[in-house]
Amino acid sequence: MQELLEYLTLKQPQINATLAAETAQLNALVQPVVSHVLTAGGKRLRPLLTLLTAATLGYTDDDIYPLACSVELLHSATLMHDDIIDDAELRRGKPAAHTQFGNTKTVLAGDVLLAQANLVVARYNDTRLTQCIAEAIVKTATGEIEEIEYLRSISHSPETYIDIIKGKTAFLLQASCIMGAVKAGGSEEQIAAASDFGMNLGIAFQIVDDALDFAVSTKSIGKPVAGDLREGKLTPPLFMYLNTLDGTKRRDFVTKFEAGTFSEEEVCFVAEQIRELGLDNATRELADTYLDKAQQALEILPACPEREILLQTLDYVKSRSA
Amino acid sequence: MQELLEYLTLKQPQINATLAAETAQLNALVQPVVSHVLTAGGKRLRPLLTLLTAATLGYTDDDIYPLACSVELLHSATLMHDDIIDDAELRRGKPAAHTQFGNTKTVLAGDVLLAQANLVVARYNDTRLTQCIAEAIVKTATGEIEEIEYLRSISHSPETYIDIIKGKTAFLLQASCIMGAVKAGGSEEQIAAASDFGMNLGIAFQIVDDALDFAVSTKSIGKPVAGDLREGKLTPPLFMYLNTLDGTKRRDFVTKFEAGTFSEEEVCFVAEQIRELGLDNATRELADTYLDKAQQALEILPACPEREILLQTLDYVKSRSA
Repeated sequence: MQELLEYLTLKQPQINATLAAETAQLNALVQPVVSHVLTAGGKRLRPLLTLLTAATLGYTDDDIYPLACSVELLHSATLMHDDIIDDAELRRGKPAAHTQFGNTKTVLAGDVLLAQANLVVARYNDTRLTQCIAEAIVKTATGEIEEIEYLRSISHSPETYIDIIKGKTAFLLQASCIMGAVKAGGSEEQIAAASDFGMNLGIAFQIVDDALDFAVSTKSIGKPVAGDLREGKLTPPLFMYLNTLDGTKRRDFVTKFEAGTFSEEEVCFVAEQIRELGLDNATRELADTYLDKAQQALEILPACPEREILLQTLDYVKSRSA
Repeated sequence: MQELLEYLTLKQPQINATLAAETAQLNALVQPVVSHVLTAGGKRLRPLLTLLTAATLGYTDDDIYPLACSVELLHSATLMHDDIIDDAELRRGKPAAHTQFGNTKTVLAGDVLLAQANLVVARYNDTRLTQCIAEAIVKTATGEIEEIEYLRSISHSPETYIDIIKGKTAFLLQASCIMGAVKAGGSEEQIAAASDFGMNLGIAFQIVDDALDFAVSTKSIGKPVAGDLREGKLTPPLFMYLNTLDGTKRRDFVTKFEAGTFSEEEVCFVAEQIRELGLDNATRELADTYLDKAQQALEILPACPEREILLQTLDYVKSRSA
């Protein structure tokens, strides 16, 4: 992953400068809320994907930076609204925006940011781009509603889980890749390949995230361990764990999962069991099937150093430990 | 206003059918929340403005309906988020969406609707339109943040009040008119005139709304009388009322306004005083200055029956009693 890390180091300053420039255009009252979220870290994966997809198709002009950052603006907007919805206390290890600025300002600043993302893309004068970003928002917000609909449900299928995480995560990564390919003037086949790559990378990214929820300490990811179990989200580790239970144990688990009545000790016990049974690693193997699909999609794009770096993003997702 | 009412009656079915068709494209989980808000009434003023502006410039093709409805979608999205922010119980006399569907679904359905509005506009393949709608959202959400910033403040100027209501109301009406003029292929001068018309109409509309807040009963507008006094919004009737007070009375009013500690009796007393002193009517006179500006802008557009109907919207705003 050497080249990916170098590329990241090389591009991050201009990405951050672009995000700061976009924020500076907003009303002074909105800026602190937006800055709070945008400067909380994050690896700028989404902008990088746009830059890399475009560069793989031969487009490296600097005018792509605002486009690349539009999805990061959008992503930050969804994080702001998510935190209110989840009533989260922390985001990336920092206090969530709403705990500092209140729900009202945070909802509205999220709306501003969401609209600003559209505005940034509109400046490119290409309706394929504006459609792409607007569709990504519709799908992302819809996916989040789906997730909530299936909270504390154990009866939905693994396919429904995949639909949910497409919404939560994959559509924005897909949009990042599509926009890079469109801006680079890619052929329809190349745009479709970029789209497939982003979608499968995004699904894998979220599956690994769901594995990590049981694998690491609060300190390293900035949120409590086994949050999905506490919130009643049936992710692959829990799905697999449920399949190891039968009889009374299963009924007891289902009852508490549906009612949200696990004690702190029970949550820790399940998390330990998942690790001991290797279900977090089995979840990572599930992610691998999507990483393979992403790799296949990549082969349709021209061979070049940037394509190699895109390939390394798959390794990054695969080996992510926080 | 005969022609306006006839035009309204003539166009509303297709406007409502278009809104229903756009809603039908959304995920099944989102539809009930969106329908709840979209079918709660509202005169479809924003879509009408787009239709009328375009028709004044000679464009009457049916393909304008989704464009005309995009601002209504946006408007509904802002209502959904507003109701959460204000913790409102009623909207247009019906239970507010969040009381029926919960905050989470309502925030997310608002996001979906906001993005759907962008998506509808993106289909028209004209970046002037996509920029217009995205800017309108940025400005609207920013204006709402400004309003909150000045809640329970008595020290800001009438100019700040105008800035706030531009954000709350006028930018969306302006966007409706601009989009009609752009879609009709209007000249730059005509687009600017449509823009001025919409802006001044919007300011007047909100000023009249702020007058009505003290002038009518809960039953006829579907929300409690003197809501602005309760919430600490310094609108023209209150600004004028404050100017009639001095000494202890003024200090007492300011203290209670800033602290939000008026009793129900005091609220009713102030509302009665405002009516007795004719300050609601004086507020309507303030609105007239903007209606005059809107009328002047209209004179730049070609004389035709639709321009006459646009002129009648000024009468409608002027004489609005609910």
